[in-house]
Amino acid sequence: MTVGPLLFKGCHPYGRCSHDWGMWMGGSELTNVRSPRVKAARRLTKRAFREQDRKFLAEGPQAVREALKLDGVTLELFSTAEAELRHPELITQATLQGVPVHRASGEVMSELSQTVTPQGLVAVCGLVHVPLEQALSGQPRLVAVLAHVRDPGNAGTVMRAADAAGADAVVLTDASVDPYNGKCVRASAGSLFHLPVTIGAPVGAAVRQLRERGLRVLAADGAGKHTLDDVDLAGPTAWIFGNEAWGLPEEILAEADDVVRVPIYGQAESLNLATAAAVCLYSSARAQRVP
Amino acid sequence: MTVGPLLFKGCHPYGRCSHDWGMWMGGSELTNVRSPRVKAARRLTKRAFREQDRKFLAEGPQAVREALKLDGVTLELFSTAEAELRHPELITQATLQGVPVHRASGEVMSELSQTVTPQGLVAVCGLVHVPLEQALSGQPRLVAVLAHVRDPGNAGTVMRAADAAGADAVVLTDASVDPYNGKCVRASAGSLFHLPVTIGAPVGAAVRQLRERGLRVLAADGAGKHTLDDVDLAGPTAWIFGNEAWGLPEEILAEADDVVRVPIYGQAESLNLATAAAVCLYSSARAQRVP
Repeated sequence: MTVGPLLFKGCHPYGRCSHDWGMWMGGSELTNVRSPRVKAARRLTKRAFREQDRKFLAEGPQAVREALKLDGVTLELFSTAEAELRHPELITQATLQGVPVHRASGEVMSELSQTVTPQGLVAVCGLVHVPLEQALSGQPRLVAVLAHVRDPGNAGTVMRAADAAGADAVVLTDASVDPYNGKCVRASAGSLFHLPVTIGAPVGAAVRQLRERGLRVLAADGAGKHTLDDVDLAGPTAWIFGNEAWGLPEEILAEADDVVRVPIYGQAESLNLATAAAVCLYSSARAQRVP
Repeated sequence: MTVGPLLFKGCHPYGRCSHDWGMWMGGSELTNVRSPRVKAARRLTKRAFREQDRKFLAEGPQAVREALKLDGVTLELFSTAEAELRHPELITQATLQGVPVHRASGEVMSELSQTVTPQGLVAVCGLVHVPLEQALSGQPRLVAVLAHVRDPGNAGTVMRAADAAGADAVVLTDASVDPYNGKCVRASAGSLFHLPVTIGAPVGAAVRQLRERGLRVLAADGAGKHTLDDVDLAGPTAWIFGNEAWGLPEEILAEADDVVRVPIYGQAESLNLATAAAVCLYSSARAQRVP
C-alpha cells in the first residue's frame, strides 16, 4: 500500500494509526513476492534493468537517510513493520516528501534485499550521477578517478574515503563497476549521495578535462617513481586509481603528470586498492589544509 | 600422496615425472573428499579445531609463498595439477623444505577452499602468533592494536596496512576475531607471516605493556578531541582501533593517552575501520620518517 501525505487527526504522524498500532491506514502489507510492484523493484538488482529503468536500490537505514536528504531522488520506500518502529523518522521524512511508502513482509524484504541480514528498508531511487563537465564545475581541488575498478565493494569504499577526505567529485571511467551495484551503494555508506559522481567517461577524456581545469593528474601505482612523501600535494589534484588486480595500464600511466606510489615500509607487497586510495586522498587533504 | 625429497634422474625436479607428464611419482591424486587427510585439513576451517590442532589453512599462491618463507611453518601443501603448472616454484620450495605436497583433485580442493574461485593451493600451517612480550620485544615504534574487531576481512586488511606502514607488531586483544580465520588470512595478503601478531591479551594489559615500553597509546575514535593533523606522531606510537560497528568502549578510551580522530572534511559520517586504520598508521609512518 501507499501512504499518502493525507493524515487523520489522532493518527500517528508517519501514517500508522495510533489507535490501531501495527496496522497501516487504508491498506495492508505487501506479502506477494510476485506482485508487479515487488517485481519492478527486484529487477533493479540487475545492471541492465537499472540502466533501462534509470533507477536503483538503496538498502539499509543509512543509505535511505542519505537518499532522502536529496530532493526528488527517492521514488519509493519499502519497509518492514520492524524497521518502521526502529526508524520512524525516515518514514516521516519520506511521507513528508510525498514518497510512497510500502509496508513489506519479511519475505518481500528478503526478495528486495541483497544482504545476508536485511535491515528492513529498501528505497527505489533515481540515478544520481552527473555529466563529467558538471562534476568538475566550480573549482575542484581534489578528485578521485577510478579507472577500470571492477570490485563494487572497493569502488564504494573509495567513494566513502573520497567523501571523507573532502573530495569534490568521483569519476568512474568506462569499464569501471556500476556505482549503483548494491554492494557499491552499501560500501559507499551514503557517500554516493554526497558528492558528484560521474560515470562512463574514457580515461583519456577525463584526464584532459581535469588538466584543463587546472588539476595535476597523479596516477597511484606501486611502480611509481615518486612516493607520497616526496611529492608536493598542496595544489589541486586528481588521483587515478586502477584495477585491484592489475593496477593501471601503461597508457594511463603515460597520460598522468606523475606516477606516485604509497611507500611500503614493511614486507607487504602492496596495499589493497581502497586502503591505498584513502592514504593518497588523505595525504592530499592534509597538504591542502595544513600549512 | 606425498612427494618426498627423493627424486629420480630424468624426473621433473618438483616431483612430477617429466616422462609421464600429469602423473605423480609413486602415487596418484587425492580424489576422495572423505579421506582422513582431507578431513583433517578440512576441519581447520572451524576455529575450535584450529585451536585444538594448533594449525590453520593458508589459501592461494600469495599466502602459500609467504608461509614458505618462514621456516617450519608450512606443514603440508595441497595443490591441483593446474596450480602446479602455474606455480612450479612453490612446489619446488615446499619439496626442498621437506613439506609433504599432496596433489588434489578439483573436488578435494573445493572441499578445502573457502573462496568462490579456488586458486588450487592450500597450505596447512602451524600457528604463528607469539606472546605479547615477544611481539613487543626490541624497541617497537609503531604498533596496531585491534580491540574487539570482529570482522575477519577488516582485521586482515588492517594487518596488511600495518605491515605496509612498517609497524613492528599487531595486537589482537581478547574478544577480537581469530587471525587464522580464512577471510582474515586472505585479506592480510601474507602479512600474517610478516610481522609479529599476538592474540588474546586483555586491552588493559596490552596498553600497560605498550606504555611500559615507551609507546604513546592513541585510541582512534570518531569522537576524538584531537585530529590526526594536530597531534605529534613522531614518537613511538601504539594505535588502538575498535569494533567496526560500535567503536571503542569508554573504558578503553579512558586507558589511552589521547583519543584521536581522522578528520572528516566532507559529508561522510565516518570512515570504515580498515581505511581509518590505514590513514592513522601511515600518518605515524610519515611523521616518524619525514623530518
